[in-house]
Amino acid sequence: MELIIAKHAGFCFGVKRATLLAFEKASDGATGETCTLGPIIHSPQVVQRLEEKGVRVVNNLSQIEKGRIILRSHGVTSTEMKEAHEKGLEVIDATCPFVRKAQSYVQLLSDQGYEVLVVGDRDHPEVEGIVSYASKAVTVVASPEEASSLPKMKRLGVVAQTTQSYETLEAVVEVCLAKVQELRVFNTICDATSVRQDEAKILARQVECMVVIGGFNSANTRRLAEICLELQQNTHHVETADQLSGEWFKGIKSVGITAGASTPKWLIDEVVDRIKAFGGDKKD
Amino acid sequence: MELIIAKHAGFCFGVKRATLLAFEKASDGATGETCTLGPIIHSPQVVQRLEEKGVRVVNNLSQIEKGRIILRSHGVTSTEMKEAHEKGLEVIDATCPFVRKAQSYVQLLSDQGYEVLVVGDRDHPEVEGIVSYASKAVTVVASPEEASSLPKMKRLGVVAQTTQSYETLEAVVEVCLAKVQELRVFNTICDATSVRQDEAKILARQVECMVVIGGFNSANTRRLAEICLELQQNTHHVETADQLSGEWFKGIKSVGITAGASTPKWLIDEVVDRIKAFGGDKKD
Repeated sequence: MELIIAKHAGFCFGVKRATLLAFEKASDGATGETCTLGPIIHSPQVVQRLEEKGVRVVNNLSQIEKGRIILRSHGVTSTEMKEAHEKGLEVIDATCPFVRKAQSYVQLLSDQGYEVLVVGDRDHPEVEGIVSYASKAVTVVASPEEASSLPKMKRLGVVAQTTQSYETLEAVVEVCLAKVQELRVFNTICDATSVRQDEAKILARQVECMVVIGGFNSANTRRLAEICLELQQNTHHVETADQLSGEWFKGIKSVGITAGASTPKWLIDEVVDRIKAFGGDKKD
Repeated sequence: MELIIAKHAGFCFGVKRATLLAFEKASDGATGETCTLGPIIHSPQVVQRLEEKGVRVVNNLSQIEKGRIILRSHGVTSTEMKEAHEKGLEVIDATCPFVRKAQSYVQLLSDQGYEVLVVGDRDHPEVEGIVSYASKAVTVVASPEEASSLPKMKRLGVVAQTTQSYETLEAVVEVCLAKVQELRVFNTICDATSVRQDEAKILARQVECMVVIGGFNSANTRRLAEICLELQQNTHHVETADQLSGEWFKGIKSVGITAGASTPKWLIDEVVDRIKAFGGDKKD
């Protein structure tokens, strides 16, 4: 059995940065408590390792009175940012720089008097953070169909959730162009997502079994698994090696492995080792 | 024979304004010469009437030393505007306000450091004027195919020739979005053109003969005639009533009439009267 691991499996730039920052702070010997506001990244295993090092997850700022607060890669709302500073907490901002850009653009557009539209999932923490930087109400749409109900406007600014598909942004822009006199689009999509997805598509067509590793609470991992499943019925989404079943690999000649943006390398390695134990030969 | 005249045949807002201004200045009894820089609008008949009132057409500013200069509806270049003022001429700016807006947006984008793209016909006087307001080189494309050879850019601003088709602008925007981080589009298309064209399409399908009136040097009239010809083979483009032939209307039950943006009402009326003389009944 041949094992092929996707080149772009696992951590994206922003997640790697946030995780390194959190582990660094967890081990720097500083006195006082270190917390993360929400899970630092969407990986329960990483969150657990940090907890073992004394980093607690709080869901809101009322749960921490002093010490250090790490702001997760998805970013937080402007109110939370302000509150954290006002409370006198030491703020460690692990917001992904690409997300930070999207926040700034929403703020800039709003300050310059544009109506603001965010293309993304309104319930995602990243989007909740992004929209909070506008000085007035922001519209969030997930599709061109949703955008088509927007009224005519004079000046509209568009920003995208960093993990949006380019096709959705393009289709929303097309709909908006017909409604406005001035359209200002910041393409804030990070191509890590599409690169990982495109690579997974090629791999899923090539192998007899696909294993997608990542948090069940990670939207990008779930989407990655869906994409693979469309092309390869024998696709399995797991968080850890323990969830693998030897049955999946019986009589299989080739296995493809990929992982979401918040999946650490050690989790991928564990899965690879376990599949090898089932009789696979690793090939990068 | 029934005659149907398109509701939006003839003068658009900017042309009407420029023509009124020119005739007003031609008759206000002021001393000194009044010239227009290039033909005031693309109608040889209107230009001739103005000449009869003493308004001379000059092709460049070296042909006028003193007096008044009327700047045509298509606008002039920023250099010509500056030179006219420096020469001490009295400048009557008959630039269409929609064209003026496109000029201002190009200037604004250029001043703010954007690369600037104009969607239009690079040889058209309007476009020559618009691009001149940028402080650095501007790219002009007439189609998405031309836009596809543009390089990747950070910040791109897009402005359209006022008579561009919306479909072309939309397609160019789609191509550009994939090449830039920030795309700022000013939709400077004036819908007078599309309204006139859409109305002509309906009319051309409905009648047995189409007459399109307007200058042979008028791009919008030529395009109007082309559109009609696609739907009605019996289409004729004329500048004046004298160019009509009785043969065209023999055995014809219905005639549709439309006219380009620079065709004055009196030219339309003359054509209508002549067709009536061939046996038509006017119906607006």
